[in-house]
This record gives sequence, structure tokens and C-alpha cells, in this order.
Amino acid sequence: MSKQLTPEEKYELITRRLQEVLGGDIIKKVLEERDCKGYWGTATTGKPHIGYFVALTKIADFLHGGVEMSILLADLHAFLDNLKAPLSLVAHRVQYYKFLLLAIFKKTLHVPTSQIKFVVGTSYQLTEAYNMDNYRLCATITEHDAKKAGAEVVKQVGNPLLSGLLYPGLQALDEQYLGVDFQFGGVDQRKIFTLAEQYLPKLGYAKRAHLMNHMVPGLAGGKMSSSDPNSKIDFLDPPNVVRKKIKLAFCEEGNVEDNGLLSFVKAVLIPVGELRRELIARGEKCEDDGGEIELPKYVGGEGEGVVGDKNKEGVAVVFTIGRDEKYGGPVHYTSYAELEEEFKEKRVHPGDLKKAVADAIIELLEPIQKEYESNAEWKDVTAKAYPSETSGSGKDGAKKEEGKKKKVYVPPPPGVVPKSKGPKKDADSAIATAVASATAAATAVGVPAALEGAALMPEEGTTSETPTKGLPPAALGEEAVDAIKDGVERVKIEE
Amino acid sequence: MSKQLTPEEKYELITRRLQEVLGGDIIKKVLEERDCKGYWGTATTGKPHIGYFVALTKIADFLHGGVEMSILLADLHAFLDNLKAPLSLVAHRVQYYKFLLLAIFKKTLHVPTSQIKFVVGTSYQLTEAYNMDNYRLCATITEHDAKKAGAEVVKQVGNPLLSGLLYPGLQALDEQYLGVDFQFGGVDQRKIFTLAEQYLPKLGYAKRAHLMNHMVPGLAGGKMSSSDPNSKIDFLDPPNVVRKKIKLAFCEEGNVEDNGLLSFVKAVLIPVGELRRELIARGEKCEDDGGEIELPKYVGGEGEGVVGDKNKEGVAVVFTIGRDEKYGGPVHYTSYAELEEEFKEKRVHPGDLKKAVADAIIELLEPIQKEYESNAEWKDVTAKAYPSETSGSGKDGAKKEEGKKKKVYVPPPPGVVPKSKGPKKDADSAIATAVASATAAATAVGVPAALEGAALMPEEGTTSETPTKGLPPAALGEEAVDAIKDGVERVKIEE
Repeated sequence: MSKQLTPEEKYELITRRLQEVLGGDIIKKVLEERDCKGYWGTATTGKPHIGYFVALTKIADFLHGGVEMSILLADLHAFLDNLKAPLSLVAHRVQYYKFLLLAIFKKTLHVPTSQIKFVVGTSYQLTEAYNMDNYRLCATITEHDAKKAGAEVVKQVGNPLLSGLLYPGLQALDEQYLGVDFQFGGVDQRKIFTLAEQYLPKLGYAKRAHLMNHMVPGLAGGKMSSSDPNSKIDFLDPPNVVRKKIKLAFCEEGNVEDNGLLSFVKAVLIPVGELRRELIARGEKCEDDGGEIELPKYVGGEGEGVVGDKNKEGVAVVFTIGRDEKYGGPVHYTSYAELEEEFKEKRVHPGDLKKAVADAIIELLEPIQKEYESNAEWKDVTAKAYPSETSGSGKDGAKKEEGKKKKVYVPPPPGVVPKSKGPKKDADSAIATAVASATAAATAVGVPAALEGAALMPEEGTTSETPTKGLPPAALGEEAVDAIKDGVERVKIEE
Repeated sequence: MSKQLTPEEKYELITRRLQEVLGGDIIKKVLEERDCKGYWGTATTGKPHIGYFVALTKIADFLHGGVEMSILLADLHAFLDNLKAPLSLVAHRVQYYKFLLLAIFKKTLHVPTSQIKFVVGTSYQLTEAYNMDNYRLCATITEHDAKKAGAEVVKQVGNPLLSGLLYPGLQALDEQYLGVDFQFGGVDQRKIFTLAEQYLPKLGYAKRAHLMNHMVPGLAGGKMSSSDPNSKIDFLDPPNVVRKKIKLAFCEEGNVEDNGLLSFVKAVLIPVGELRRELIARGEKCEDDGGEIELPKYVGGEGEGVVGDKNKEGVAVVFTIGRDEKYGGPVHYTSYAELEEEFKEKRVHPGDLKKAVADAIIELLEPIQKEYESNAEWKDVTAKAYPSETSGSGKDGAKKEEGKKKKVYVPPPPGVVPKSKGPKKDADSAIATAVASATAAATAVGVPAALEGAALMPEEGTTSETPTKGLPPAALGEEAVDAIKDGVERVKIEE
């Protein structure tokens, strides 16, 4: 597909919807001669949750724009994150991530995976050359600059580990060793990216471009960092679990500012819907998908009852609220702005939005779960990668307890925003935040740690300057307590 | 020889004259079963000066005590120290250090070099295993502990490099990778050593013992850090240069507190004299020395006119002042205490002490220089290792200037106290300190950077909280200016 696009069209695809582009000229210059090479990294720790859709949806744009995309499966960083799980366990997790990401790209995002290069961190991060460059960098970079670079993504605890100062530099080196033209991440990575731009040339290496996504708040709601193990939706969560968690989400009528569900619609559902409609409009097939895209019902689906008074003929529907016929039937949207306006004007009820988001997520997950069920190897790897999910929580709990004392600060993996360490919740807000949450935005919640496309793990006992905010009880779904219990059992993630 | 000693005698030899021993029990336990293994490191940067005698004289004790001694020639650290000299140049310097250290051990200290293992840093410090351990350590050690460990040996500048936090941990790992029972260094390394004791076990490695030498002030005098390129005596300096530099040394009559010359006598000349007399007493031959030790004239020599009223029969002379016959002839000492008392009581004139120290140093250097002159390979390596000494200072000066801006802080190599960065001298004290200086003691001069067995290089423009101290003009030798000029040309060290 990319062969048919002009360099300008590719650049537009590569950079659309981003919050910031540093070094756009670098990309433009490359595109005049060849397709671009990019890099995004994730530490292979806990099971990814649907917050990963935010980054992956943007990566779909890159792939459509002809980018050869290196996805760094940072096993070394995952290992260093904990130091208790042996590398052999991490190796299984690498396989799990690979199976999952491929399924998402192929089955839900319909993008050409032939342009994706999965690179395992230990394949080059322990080599002589890489380590010499690490030493060289450490003898060039100041403590101050290293600390400043990590300030936004590194949780500023009282007694941070030395590795926190090391990782920003390593993330810069990855650009060189992966041989890419740009690195992609959330905008909270900005200081790490500018450090790379500043220091790679000092080692005699080229300065790379940096593409930054907006930060997306968690489904749980804007002002809170979701730091509860029950507050995330796993890609393999069955429909009933998804519905229960979404029902728990904070979603106040007419409130479009502090609404994690709307944010998820904007950052994931609408873009996925648009991607699908673009493919359909071009009449393209996705090879990896095994055929043409079936028209979905909720995300990028076709529908008649377009909202509002505007004439929607010829404009593709990208999101649908499957409202019951007795309340007026389904409503179709061609843009996020339409939906936001409707919700603001209280013409869309929170209950309908919750149902719509749950419908949409279930629709996105369905082909992934189908793939999982039919793939014996993936299932086998999952059992090996996350044994505690089936073996009970006794041993795991003790391990976590032990780890907590030493693991004061968990450094971020390259290209990945670190795990969110939210405020310690009191009894009330614990219930409120024990809801389905995919992404937690640092910018929104005011804490330095943020999450975007990274596994969300709780750190009980950590504190934050950000006070927790009490939620109006009305915003809580009716099945809250049941869902919490259910979530505890089903969504337990070993780490 | 060590085979004939009991474990207790070996322990006594290994630990004598040290300021502090941490983990003596570890050594005692090993000695019950086998001989010990130790490690001392030096970064192969500038040409070593005679301050190295302090550490090497103690290493001679280790070797006599049966220790298998690993000498780490830290080429990687030397390279990282500067980042401008390529590793190929550093490789020549490694060879220079090896030739020199072997000559000192064989020809001047008469110790069995078969027990010495020279290990080049890059032979293991870039391996996968070592780097994995480095990462593990960085994910275990806190910033705070790393910083604290380097506080005494790392110059506390405003904008330190990240490497300064890395080196203490690497120095700990060296103990494991060199497979030793103890590490040896100056007492200013204490915090680095205790860090190793604290953190190696956390990686699953054994805690090692740590042996610490006293800090020895520079020949230039106690209260000043010698930071002038002309203020060091090279092992290859010819006798006339040695005499000129010693004449410039601050040496006040009766002052035994602030007297770099006396400190050198105590830390080097007397121990070397004692080592020699011990060998003679045992009737041993040093195989590497090619035969029996010729009785020296000044250091460990035999003489008749023993000082004082005490009956010296049967007590070995270890140091001799070769006073002219018209002033009473030579005076022989059997201990440092005797000499110090004589000087304190003003029965030894500064001029006589200066002459004696110069005589003694020339005597120590003579067999080393003879070896150098007869070793074409060593001479060849020297020209390649330090090309600027013959090629003029123009290019080198520019390089140094350029380096200064970036190299705000030079981290210490493993096992080696960093280069002394003394106070910026004013016009008066510049002359006073432009004297022969071998070692600069952090403890004595009150600045965190210290020198012991490491190359002394100036950093013009660096400042210190320690005020410079004006010297009485009377303490200056008459050939001061000539010697400075001479020194500038002859002792120029490229770095």
C-alpha cells in the first residue's frame, strides 16, 4: 500500500494525531529516498492490557505509512525490573507478547505485519559494542541530565535506584542499535527523547526524530491514577468481565473533561474505526487477516441512524452506540467531536456510553481471543509465562511483599512509560478506582509516573503528592462489588 | 618463600603497616587452607610517577606473604577517562605499565613476579556476564549509596558525570571477576570497599576483605595538593632532574608535621630498606633479579656511623643520610622514628635530608632505568604510548584545552585513587608547589581527591575550598626556576 503513497502522504499518515513531532525534517528527508524505520519498545513484564491499543493504533498508521517498525521486546529490562523472575520466565513472556501483538495487528488493526521486526533486548544489549557505548555515554552524560531526562517517567521516590539514571541513556543507544530513523512513545517521554537527541551525536551517532502520542487518562477517570490490579481490562478478558469492569467506571452525565471512557473512545475506538473505514474505502485486503474485513458493528461499522441534523451521506461511520430500539435505536458517529458534543449536552446517557464502550471493546477483543483459543502454542506459552494466574496467589503474594522492600523504584523500560504508581487509596476511593482502566495519564493525574501501552501494576504502600478524589456514589455501577471480587480472581497478574 | 611461613606469619606480613583491615577473618580462614588472592588496580593513563612506590611496596609484602596478586591494568577506565585517546593508544600504555611495574618489582623491590597476574580490564569488563552483573547491580544499588561510596575519591564538582556513580559498583564486580579474596587500596577507598562488602552478597557473590594503606602526602608538602605537571618525579627521570625537583620541595627545619619528604621516607624508603634487609637476613635470592641483592648505599644499606647513642649492633640499617665527611660523614638509621626525632630536634638539616632523599630515590630508580635502556621493546612501546612527549606540546595543549570543557569530572579507575585536583595556585604558591611531588594525600590536604599510586595530572582552572598556603621563601631551593623550566620540558606528560 505504502508504495502508492507520495512521501507527503506518508509523512501525513506517520505524524497524524500525534501531540508532538521532534525532527520532522529528518523523516521528510528519509521519505524522499526510502521508507522510514521506527522503534517502539515495551518491557515484557505483566500481561498487556487494552491500554496498549493507544500505542498500537498509532503504530498501525506507521505501518500504513510504509514504516519498517522495530518493536523492542525489552526482556533485559523486564528482568531488571524485578530481579526475581529468572530470564527463562521472561523468555516465555517475550513469546506471549509477540503472539498477542501479532494477533492485535493482524486481527483487529488489519495491518501488514511483514513490516514489523520484533527485536528481543538481550539479542544486542549485552554485546561488547553496546556496553562500550553505554560506558562511553556514562562518561559523557552528566548525573544532572540523566536525572532530568527521567524526571517525568521515573517515579521520584526518596531512595531511587541507580538504574533509573542509566535507562534514559540506554534508550538512546537503542535507536542506534536498532538502526531506526525515529523513536515513538508517549509525550511523557519527551525529556528522554531530547536527551537522546542531545547525546547520541556526542558519541558520533546520528540524531533521530521523535514522535510523541498524547497521554490518555485511564478508563477509571481523569484525576486518579489507576493503581489497582482489578482496574485493567486484559486482552483475554471474556465479554462478561469486560462489561462488569466498564460498568464500574466513573462516568458522570455531561462531564466530558473527566471521563476516561470518552478519552478511550477518542484515543482508540475512533482511530481504529477510521483505520477500518480507510481500508474499506481503498478496497484493500489485509493479507495477514486472511481476507476482507467484515464490517464491524460498533467500531468503524456501517449504520443508518446517523446522529444529529447533519447530512451524513457519504461520510463513514466510525463509532456506534448500540442503543435499544425502544430508546430510539442505534446512533452512529462519524467523528469524536460529534459524540463529545452529544454527551456534553446530555443527549447521551452515561449508561448508553458505558454499554457502547463495552460493546466496542468486546468487538475489538473477539478476533484476538478467537486467535488465542485456536493457537495451542500461544496458550502453552501463556501458562509458562504467567504460572501464578492458575496456581493461586499465596506464593505470589509473599514474593510481591518481599520485592516491595527492595524495589523502591522500578525504572522504565526503553520506549515504554513506566508502571503507574498512583496514590494510596482510602476505602472509598478504592472502590471507585477498582474499575476497568486501561491507561493512566501522567499529565491528567498530576503524578510523574504514567502509563501508555505498558502493563499496569499496583504498588501498594506507595504514596503520592496527588490527593485522591472522592467520587460521587451515583457514578458507580450497580455491580461494583461483584465485579471487584470477580476481577480479583480473574485478572490477577503475577509479577 | 611463602611456603616456609606459617599462616599467622603470612597474615602478619599481609597486614603490616596498613591503616585498616576489613574482613581480616576472611583472609585468616583462607590462609588456613591455601595462599590468598588479592587485587589492586590502576588506570593506564599518564606515565606513573614514584608515588606508585607506596602501593607497590605494600604489594611486595603481599607477594612475600604468598599472595597471588592480580594487578588490574584498567585500560577501559583509562579510555573512558578521556574518550579522546583511542583504545589502541591505551593498549600501548598498558604495555608501558606492565614493563615498568615488572621492572620495579624485579629490580628494586626484589619480589617474585611469578605470583603477579596482570589482567587487562577489557579482557572481561565488556563480556556479557560482567555487563549483566553491572545491570543487576545498578538495579539493586541506590543512587544515594553509589554517590556516598564515591564521595571521598570522586571530586565533588558541580556537574559530575554519570560514570562517577557507576565506577564504585564496577570496582566491586572486579573482585568477583578477578576471583580474589581481598582488594587493596588507599584508605580513601574505604566507602567504595564497604559498598562492595554490602552489595556483592546481594548479587549472590562472596563478601571480600579490604586492606587499606595510609594516605601519604605529596613530596611538595602536607597542606597542598600537588596539581602541577612539573611536580612529579617520573620513574625514568635522570638523576639531575630528580635532584632539581627535590631541591624545590618544601622542607622546613624541625617541621616534621608538614613535610612531604619525611612522609615519603616513612612510606617508601624505610619499608623498601626493611624489605631488603629482611631478604638479606634470610639469605634469599630473588630469581627475577638475576642474583643476590647488592648492598645498596642509602636504602637498606650497610653502614658504620649509626646515629645516636644507642648500640646498633645487630640492628639492620634501613636508611642512610650520605652527609659529607667534613660535616660528620654519613648517618645511618634503623627506623623512621630515629630519623624523625633527629629532624625534629634540628640535628638533621633540611639540605641534608633533601640530598639523602634524592640519593635514595636515584638509587631506587637506577636499576629500573638500566632495565629500560636495555629493553628495546619497552622503549619502543613508550614512544607509542606517549608520543606527545617527543612531538611537542602544541597539538596536545589544544587537546587538553578542548577536553577540559567536557571532562568536568574524571571518575576514578577501579582500585585506584583518582587524580588529584588541587587548588588553583597563585603566583607565589605556584613556585612553591612546582616541586617534586609523588603523592598527594586527601586526608592531609583536605580535598576529596587524593592520589596514591596513580598518575598525577594537573587540571588548571579547577578550584577547591582549601585555601592555598603561602610558603616561606627560605624553604625554596636555589635552582627553583631552572628546575621548573627544565621540568616543563622533560616531564611533560601527555594525557
